[in-house]
Amino acid sequence: MKLHALSKMGQRTPEPPISWLMHAALSRPKLISLAAGFTDNASLPVAEARAALTQVLRSPKTGQPALQYGITAGDTTLRQLTAEHLRKLDLGGTPCRRPKNQGRRHAVPPEIYSFERLLITSGSQQLLYMTTEALCDEGDIVLVEDPTYFVYLSILQSRGLRARAVRLERDGLDLAHLESVLQSLKRTGELWRIKMIYLVSYFQNPTGVTTSFEKKYGILKLLKKFERDAGHPIYLLEDAAYRGLRFAGRDVPSALAADGAADRVIYAGTFTKPFATGARVGYGVLPEPVFTAVKHIKGNHDFGTANLLQQLFVRALASGSYGRHVARLQKRYAHKAHVMKLAIKKHFPTAVEWWEPEGGLYFWARLPHGLPSGIKSKVFSTALKNDVLYVPGEICYADDAARRKPNHEMRISFGSASEADIREGIARLGKVLRKFL
Amino acid sequence: MKLHALSKMGQRTPEPPISWLMHAALSRPKLISLAAGFTDNASLPVAEARAALTQVLRSPKTGQPALQYGITAGDTTLRQLTAEHLRKLDLGGTPCRRPKNQGRRHAVPPEIYSFERLLITSGSQQLLYMTTEALCDEGDIVLVEDPTYFVYLSILQSRGLRARAVRLERDGLDLAHLESVLQSLKRTGELWRIKMIYLVSYFQNPTGVTTSFEKKYGILKLLKKFERDAGHPIYLLEDAAYRGLRFAGRDVPSALAADGAADRVIYAGTFTKPFATGARVGYGVLPEPVFTAVKHIKGNHDFGTANLLQQLFVRALASGSYGRHVARLQKRYAHKAHVMKLAIKKHFPTAVEWWEPEGGLYFWARLPHGLPSGIKSKVFSTALKNDVLYVPGEICYADDAARRKPNHEMRISFGSASEADIREGIARLGKVLRKFL
Repeated sequence: MKLHALSKMGQRTPEPPISWLMHAALSRPKLISLAAGFTDNASLPVAEARAALTQVLRSPKTGQPALQYGITAGDTTLRQLTAEHLRKLDLGGTPCRRPKNQGRRHAVPPEIYSFERLLITSGSQQLLYMTTEALCDEGDIVLVEDPTYFVYLSILQSRGLRARAVRLERDGLDLAHLESVLQSLKRTGELWRIKMIYLVSYFQNPTGVTTSFEKKYGILKLLKKFERDAGHPIYLLEDAAYRGLRFAGRDVPSALAADGAADRVIYAGTFTKPFATGARVGYGVLPEPVFTAVKHIKGNHDFGTANLLQQLFVRALASGSYGRHVARLQKRYAHKAHVMKLAIKKHFPTAVEWWEPEGGLYFWARLPHGLPSGIKSKVFSTALKNDVLYVPGEICYADDAARRKPNHEMRISFGSASEADIREGIARLGKVLRKFL
Repeated sequence: MKLHALSKMGQRTPEPPISWLMHAALSRPKLISLAAGFTDNASLPVAEARAALTQVLRSPKTGQPALQYGITAGDTTLRQLTAEHLRKLDLGGTPCRRPKNQGRRHAVPPEIYSFERLLITSGSQQLLYMTTEALCDEGDIVLVEDPTYFVYLSILQSRGLRARAVRLERDGLDLAHLESVLQSLKRTGELWRIKMIYLVSYFQNPTGVTTSFEKKYGILKLLKKFERDAGHPIYLLEDAAYRGLRFAGRDVPSALAADGAADRVIYAGTFTKPFATGARVGYGVLPEPVFTAVKHIKGNHDFGTANLLQQLFVRALASGSYGRHVARLQKRYAHKAHVMKLAIKKHFPTAVEWWEPEGGLYFWARLPHGLPSGIKSKVFSTALKNDVLYVPGEICYADDAARRKPNHEMRISFGSASEADIREGIARLGKVLRKFL
């Protein structure tokens, strides 16, 4: 008799690689972690959250609905505020601006920003999970950036899905490589296995790369081209979790604003990454029939995201305290990123290539080939011995037989560490790297 | 080309039957709904929630951790408080009471109530979902009570699982029928398809039935007997969502306290049903390796339940305001149930059989055979025309070829309706029933 009765999914859902890193951190009290994706503790909006919740709970009239079940899709007011917020971000306040698509301008259908296509979720993470449930059967293939968000890779592994990795450039996917991957899947008769491509389009986790609007449009055009052979729509799942954390440069419209997006783009956003990650409210914009399928799945998961948290964001958005906080936070991250940049310039050997982000939480550094940075590498263990932790780049790469998995990069976060710890942590890391270079 | 790219799961996840009922309700402003499983609005703990959250957010020191990510399994303090709460409920405050199992007494291993086996979830609903993911592959069979919680039936349908229904008596499952179902699955070679049995063990939704401790023990013993032929453990998933809502009689220990439970019982509980359903904090107690599998799956779903809500319950439990509120609520539901009972006695024809619960939110009524109560029945449409809504019993029955699906029952809730509406709603329903009987 077997000792367990786990499903295939129960057996293949991996321990998140980040847990191992966190355990390693726990046993070293002096360790400076530049690994965690946590947000800046000192700037968490304690007073703002208290004010908003006190407002919500000041009377039975407003308090009772917040403590009662809501509807599965989410609070209607929050959905309306969110849809309007998104429309303004994408179209700059005009009802129907026309973003450029490769030079041509087109009108964005206003119904794309209808609250009826918008679903509130427990963080944007839950939207990624449920969308994958709604679209992908075991054995299906999801196209991902190379490298990509490692928790999404865990979802794929857990659900028995395969990833095909597409090269990432400084402004998003390499379109020529995307086309060649699609071509090769067509040749092997596996195109029908592709339901979507997953992009982290703003200050990507882990590289900090932002996908240009032109590339979003180019990706949609390419997907469309292969749909007939796939036999069904191929969706673009745009994970915009870090979009609110821009501190330099100008916002890029989401893929929703691109020509051909109306029935092909799924957009995942969040209120909590730039405000309070402990409040877990995200959202998705989805075309039919994906919207309805995901809503029904959400009904089975939890009937809807905690109404009390949704009301917190209704208040914080309507009062403007949300917007003010995000603006303050952007300045703070701009400063912390600057501190990290100066430290990297000072301490890293010149052989190390690194990318500076315009937002988000991460720098991305690439060691010379031949010097591995992975969990079992000498660089990693020496760094740990010197009380500094980073995320090894290798955990952000999908298993894909079409290329060797790179293992000489590191994700370095300025999110949760203090300025002093950023300086000291980078100095320690620089010292370690100089030993090997 | 197909017009969609939905997965099998995306295609088969049904609209919850309750949505249809709710839509029906929306178009009739004078309708009294005895259908909703919502809790009593007037008694929602607005002041208690405000006090607890103000405490949590009164300073950066306590506020910041509440607004930051937590760990996937949940806040350690909340897990400890919950484990202790559960141990006291089951064993009455003594470290190791010995509940009777069919007359014999046995010692409960104390590690069953260790916080390390406890996982915090977004309502107990999420625990049901993730446990099913961790244990059941497409095509597997879950044993359920006949009738059972209809949202759980939606989960089974969505995930491509089959249900086998086991007869329900006034004190829980019919053990002889459970044995004969297991025998028949053994004969057809399908025993290996069974990973668990799902029970709503306190004031069951929809019947109000509470499973006796003796029956829990009897079920575990029967499952054990068939495990060798199944080739793996068979779990008992005990859904105790309504346990806190007892207003008459004495609490029954959970299956965790039964002999043989240590590595076979999964217990799902919730803080929010008897406090604030809009705060969505539930929990599960799980043996290894199910605990670890579900924790990893939870990491993929959402990294952990909103920390802010968990802190709300840490405060409310520690200050005693949670316990005081539940005690008040029990009195309120006792009164509302009494009001409903008197109204039923007064207005329902004697040919209608009905069950009075000792807790929870529901009465269960059975019309004479030959008088259907389902969504397409004359009774249902006449009730709707007379502005009263109930949940037709038929939606609570699994598809099971081994018996005809009963269609002449109704679930009647006193949860959300006011006392006046309970009286008037039952009077209207009685009038409708008298037309047909």
